[in-house]
Amino acid sequence: MTAFARRAERIQPSAIREFLALAGDPAITSFAGGYPDATLFPIDELHKIYDDLLTPGSAGALQYTASEGLPELRAQVAARLTADGMPCTADDVLITQGGQQGLDLTAKLFIDAGDVIVTERPTFLGALIAFNPCEPDYRSVPIDEEGMDMEALESVLRTTDRVKLIYTVPDYQNPTGQTMSLARRRRLVELAEEFDVVILEDTPYRELRYEGERLPTIKSLDRTGRVVHLGSFSKILAPGLRLGWALAPADVREKLSLLKLAADTQNGTLNMRAAAAYLTSFDIEAHIASMLPTYRHKRDLMLSMLEEHFPEGTSWTRAQGGLFTWVTFPKRLDIAAVQRDLLIPRAGVIVVPGAPFFAVEPESNHARMSFSGVPDDRIVSGVSAMGALLREALRA
Amino acid sequence: MTAFARRAERIQPSAIREFLALAGDPAITSFAGGYPDATLFPIDELHKIYDDLLTPGSAGALQYTASEGLPELRAQVAARLTADGMPCTADDVLITQGGQQGLDLTAKLFIDAGDVIVTERPTFLGALIAFNPCEPDYRSVPIDEEGMDMEALESVLRTTDRVKLIYTVPDYQNPTGQTMSLARRRRLVELAEEFDVVILEDTPYRELRYEGERLPTIKSLDRTGRVVHLGSFSKILAPGLRLGWALAPADVREKLSLLKLAADTQNGTLNMRAAAAYLTSFDIEAHIASMLPTYRHKRDLMLSMLEEHFPEGTSWTRAQGGLFTWVTFPKRLDIAAVQRDLLIPRAGVIVVPGAPFFAVEPESNHARMSFSGVPDDRIVSGVSAMGALLREALRA
Repeated sequence: MTAFARRAERIQPSAIREFLALAGDPAITSFAGGYPDATLFPIDELHKIYDDLLTPGSAGALQYTASEGLPELRAQVAARLTADGMPCTADDVLITQGGQQGLDLTAKLFIDAGDVIVTERPTFLGALIAFNPCEPDYRSVPIDEEGMDMEALESVLRTTDRVKLIYTVPDYQNPTGQTMSLARRRRLVELAEEFDVVILEDTPYRELRYEGERLPTIKSLDRTGRVVHLGSFSKILAPGLRLGWALAPADVREKLSLLKLAADTQNGTLNMRAAAAYLTSFDIEAHIASMLPTYRHKRDLMLSMLEEHFPEGTSWTRAQGGLFTWVTFPKRLDIAAVQRDLLIPRAGVIVVPGAPFFAVEPESNHARMSFSGVPDDRIVSGVSAMGALLREALRA
Repeated sequence: MTAFARRAERIQPSAIREFLALAGDPAITSFAGGYPDATLFPIDELHKIYDDLLTPGSAGALQYTASEGLPELRAQVAARLTADGMPCTADDVLITQGGQQGLDLTAKLFIDAGDVIVTERPTFLGALIAFNPCEPDYRSVPIDEEGMDMEALESVLRTTDRVKLIYTVPDYQNPTGQTMSLARRRRLVELAEEFDVVILEDTPYRELRYEGERLPTIKSLDRTGRVVHLGSFSKILAPGLRLGWALAPADVREKLSLLKLAADTQNGTLNMRAAAAYLTSFDIEAHIASMLPTYRHKRDLMLSMLEEHFPEGTSWTRAQGGLFTWVTFPKRLDIAAVQRDLLIPRAGVIVVPGAPFFAVEPESNHARMSFSGVPDDRIVSGVSAMGALLREALRA
């Protein structure tokens, strides 16, 4: 067979795939997936909607439609974004195949091989996977409880050629759960202006807020049209519908739409109609509000279990929303090895070892732990079993 | 705003977009869309399926699933491909977001900027749109009633560096409706072996066969694992579900899966479950067979109307299947101009002017006309009105 393209070197199976395959095993307690809690999906409402959509005379729900997305759904998304401080119309919105496609399309639009993307340190692994086929170079900037470190970012921007994109998950970041403060959001926009780079703001967890203020999006602070804002229905409605959106300045949105047409013609018509019908017939804000106590409770349970069972020298983040906590172990502990040798065989517990979340210079003493899709009793038994095995590993 | 990537130059709005926008106007008779006939969708069956899928306890239908696609659906597709002369298992199959995504992923895997893709002349416009972001060079090879001209192909392969991919729609090609003969399929495989290139075989229309023998796929003739075979549920079930597949050698399928994960995580879970349930509970072969008389009738009606009304010096293809006929007008007639000046304002008729279907050296005296989604009375009135206006244009 003829040779692959050069970019194929950047398309490698992730080390976490084997762990994620285990996640389907009912004997395994998985803190690995970034899955929402399926028991919270509005399945009765969606049942009614699909029942109404698939009737004789409504065959259009199964036909092709516009590549930018169903006009009604674009308008509804625009109305929600407007309410969230980003005044826009349907024309400004592109419907994407989940949030992930927004990452793929944005990278394609801005990144030539060798261009630099700045990410948080650590950052969302799926974004790196989406960006890699465009063959970027990366720089990474530490993230703390106020988000991306702006002094470190400024230093990178000042010393690095060809920076095209700054990628951030400002709300309840994946994998750390951290949230960028308002001051840093403002500073980020200033720096992007000063150094003429694009900000890619990814907000899949934004509406899963358990405490703290709702902060303005980075897009809402943008005065020069340099923010591409991504969002998703995956965590507020259901991921299996594969519906997300991109909000971008007109010239960018137009190019993203053409890339969407090239990539997969359009999103599924039936699912877009279903989402539009859901937004028309039901109160999604009430639905989101109804999910928050469950997630807040799971977060609190996990944090208290970590406090109770994890060994000294281990620390973790306290996410104000979203699905994740990020655990940092003593430097000498390689969590991937501990998982392979102890956690899986002796406790049937999996987490996501943190190394693949680093765009450069991976560190092996972190793990991402998700509380969102795990039953309470499994959170208790899984974290306590982990604690004992971690102590054992640290004594070795 | 910072500069776009170099590939953005290759991402331009198509000249046909404005015409396609008109296609939604009920006053317009559109031969432009490549839409299947929505009245043939199995809407009652799908209604029952979604009704069964969306019940309490089946929230998994709305959750994430494997990026390669639902295992059950992959196995069912593999069984159908096996029955079509391509022995394979679920592992060999990737579920894609319609056939279009297979084009995008395959180009990403094989094409570096400046690599050459050989296409038929004319070729599927959507494939060019999918390939363009990878910045290929193109060569094109004439197509006639036996498909791609193999002598011309050999000449291109012999004289061109960096040919990586030969793209073909062997069955009822888009836009010409032509079918590649068995002898040429065999020769194509030989040439691909001799010159060590990959064949991308795209078969969205394969099962819409109105006359002639069912020919073996190119993939079924492949002995050296150099064919990527794409298919789609869009024309045999419904395009609004966005479900297609890629069948490829193991190392290629693995890389395509990783690119799929990067591009959009996965197809919609609910729609994949629905397709799997359809294949389990209903007889898709019988469904396809039930659609053929309608399409055959529409094709025959269009061909007889063309015969009756189109002016001398005009010719067209006789497709043995699929959705299209390709009309060639006298060289001096620019059909895009005629459409703009006469067909739209005076008859409310649109076709797809043929120029964008040429990868290189576009010709302006062709049009693609689809009969598939047009009511009979519109075929009669539209073609006869076109005939009169074409005569007028040719007299001018």
